[in-house]
Amino acid sequence: MQFDSLDDIRAFCRDLPGGDPRCAGLAAQRQQNLTKPPGSLGRLEELAVWLAQWQGREQPRLDRITIAVFAGNHGVAARGVSAYPQTVTTQMVANFAAGGAAINQIARLASAELLVMPIELDRPTRDFTEAAAMSPDEFLGAVGIGYRTVPGDCDLLAVGEMGIANTTAAAALCTALLGGNAARWAGRGTGVDDEGLARKRAAIEAALNFHRGILGDPLAVGAALGGRELAAIAGAVLAARRRRIPVLLDGFVATAAVLPLARLDAGALGHCRAGHVSAESAHRDLLRELGLDPLLDLNMRLGEASGAAVAILLMRAALACHAGMATFAEAGVSGAGKE
Amino acid sequence: MQFDSLDDIRAFCRDLPGGDPRCAGLAAQRQQNLTKPPGSLGRLEELAVWLAQWQGREQPRLDRITIAVFAGNHGVAARGVSAYPQTVTTQMVANFAAGGAAINQIARLASAELLVMPIELDRPTRDFTEAAAMSPDEFLGAVGIGYRTVPGDCDLLAVGEMGIANTTAAAALCTALLGGNAARWAGRGTGVDDEGLARKRAAIEAALNFHRGILGDPLAVGAALGGRELAAIAGAVLAARRRRIPVLLDGFVATAAVLPLARLDAGALGHCRAGHVSAESAHRDLLRELGLDPLLDLNMRLGEASGAAVAILLMRAALACHAGMATFAEAGVSGAGKE
Repeated sequence: MQFDSLDDIRAFCRDLPGGDPRCAGLAAQRQQNLTKPPGSLGRLEELAVWLAQWQGREQPRLDRITIAVFAGNHGVAARGVSAYPQTVTTQMVANFAAGGAAINQIARLASAELLVMPIELDRPTRDFTEAAAMSPDEFLGAVGIGYRTVPGDCDLLAVGEMGIANTTAAAALCTALLGGNAARWAGRGTGVDDEGLARKRAAIEAALNFHRGILGDPLAVGAALGGRELAAIAGAVLAARRRRIPVLLDGFVATAAVLPLARLDAGALGHCRAGHVSAESAHRDLLRELGLDPLLDLNMRLGEASGAAVAILLMRAALACHAGMATFAEAGVSGAGKE
Repeated sequence: MQFDSLDDIRAFCRDLPGGDPRCAGLAAQRQQNLTKPPGSLGRLEELAVWLAQWQGREQPRLDRITIAVFAGNHGVAARGVSAYPQTVTTQMVANFAAGGAAINQIARLASAELLVMPIELDRPTRDFTEAAAMSPDEFLGAVGIGYRTVPGDCDLLAVGEMGIANTTAAAALCTALLGGNAARWAGRGTGVDDEGLARKRAAIEAALNFHRGILGDPLAVGAALGGRELAAIAGAVLAARRRRIPVLLDGFVATAAVLPLARLDAGALGHCRAGHVSAESAHRDLLRELGLDPLLDLNMRLGEASGAAVAILLMRAALACHAGMATFAEAGVSGAGKE
């Protein structure tokens, strides 16, 4: 176990490993010399420099890309907050194993390995309207599973989740850690109707009231209002930071999962990019709060790392241009202002 | 030659071939049955249905994807409207042939064939501030080159361009056909400075004044203010429409190139999607005028079909999900509201 206590996580976030500014500078310099007007590849240039910065390589690589999808079940599902029954979490994990889900198709297209980690699906978290969803030890256990899922030699990590009712947990985390009422953060998730949405908001308000004594402690909030798959995402993002692996976050739930880390230190997500902005209404607001500018805006709201996985394709485009383009000198192309 | 006169193009645009609504309906129905909440793949679902509609196949395919890049030179370059000398057009065509440009890298990543068609680079169009850039026959000749470039069996076409000074031609087309003054449509292109931008706007205003007698005729405007590579893009888009091949447009210049067609008939671009919105300032405005919602917004402004080529990756993701995902029944996953 890499983090034996919540204090270990707090200590890590007080002294975060940084990227390599020298490699970032060299990569940015290379971009200036490639056969295109400077800056004209836009975010593809920025992504190449970001990969160089975190991988500590002037010429970054994407030989091994890992997509980690964590699954968990939630006690609050009993309150009728989702359009789907809780059994769907297990059924979708089986669908991932059989290769039938969206993420299987996108992972194959992106030449990325897919690791699916179901976490105690037969033992949902407790209903957080009347208890802590997880004890600190349960929370740390899930963090550790996420941490250990990340291969030491991967060049890019994408994180996502599956868990019926987990947009309720994500919205509860946002309400607790960013303020506003439940209506600001609770959306329709997989497609809940008006009555379900009202139940979802009521559950969040009840939880905030029940846990009002701990709202100043981001990790305690993560344990009390989160879920096992969210804790595992936080653990995977911590593992990536320790090894300086760049990370693509998926949608609303995956972003909310790392919110406690960002509340410990505003720089904790420096090695992360938002793969996309979800159609789940609160995601755009959450990204703005975190200063994350999403790469894609495709009206997706599926979770299971699908948006982050599509963004891997953009990373591959960025790297292909960075590594493969000729310089002005190599190609004999005149620069700006020259005859 | 497929269009012997401007009237042939006008007649074609009065009686445009449509897509196949039956195949679109079947594809949309399939999307409802795949293992995800309905609509949760957002634009990826819409793209799969659009492919089905234009290909006339319930299960669309992307076996052969063609990227066509047309290059031309412009008399108005002599007015100092670009940051780069005109020789760069030829130099970049050589760079395409050698495989050193951005589009070479992205095309390879997308498994798309790249066809580059330089059109009379040693014979720039005339300076449109004092003459028609092209005669009707010259315009039709370039349209024909574009038309014949499109392989009959391609499943998706992406179009783009290379041509020093061609954002000036594109902005002139927009000013003539959509109104407003030159400042609305003229941006910095490859990165022209303030004085160059002022020269660009002055050239457009002079051209609009010189050609004021023909501004009501979209194809005459295309000949007088456009360029050979823009006319070829229009020809390729017409060929695609005749064969019901879906098209991804690249940036500001490629979109302006097909504006004359849209002015002949508002439905002329029904088989086209905007691959991205460029950082060239007027592109967003132009897309809004045409009712095109771009797939990507990555601050790119390179041209050479680079933005459309990145969007091919999204088409592949859309098709991979459409073709490869399991249905609820196949995977044994419960639907919404069921226990």
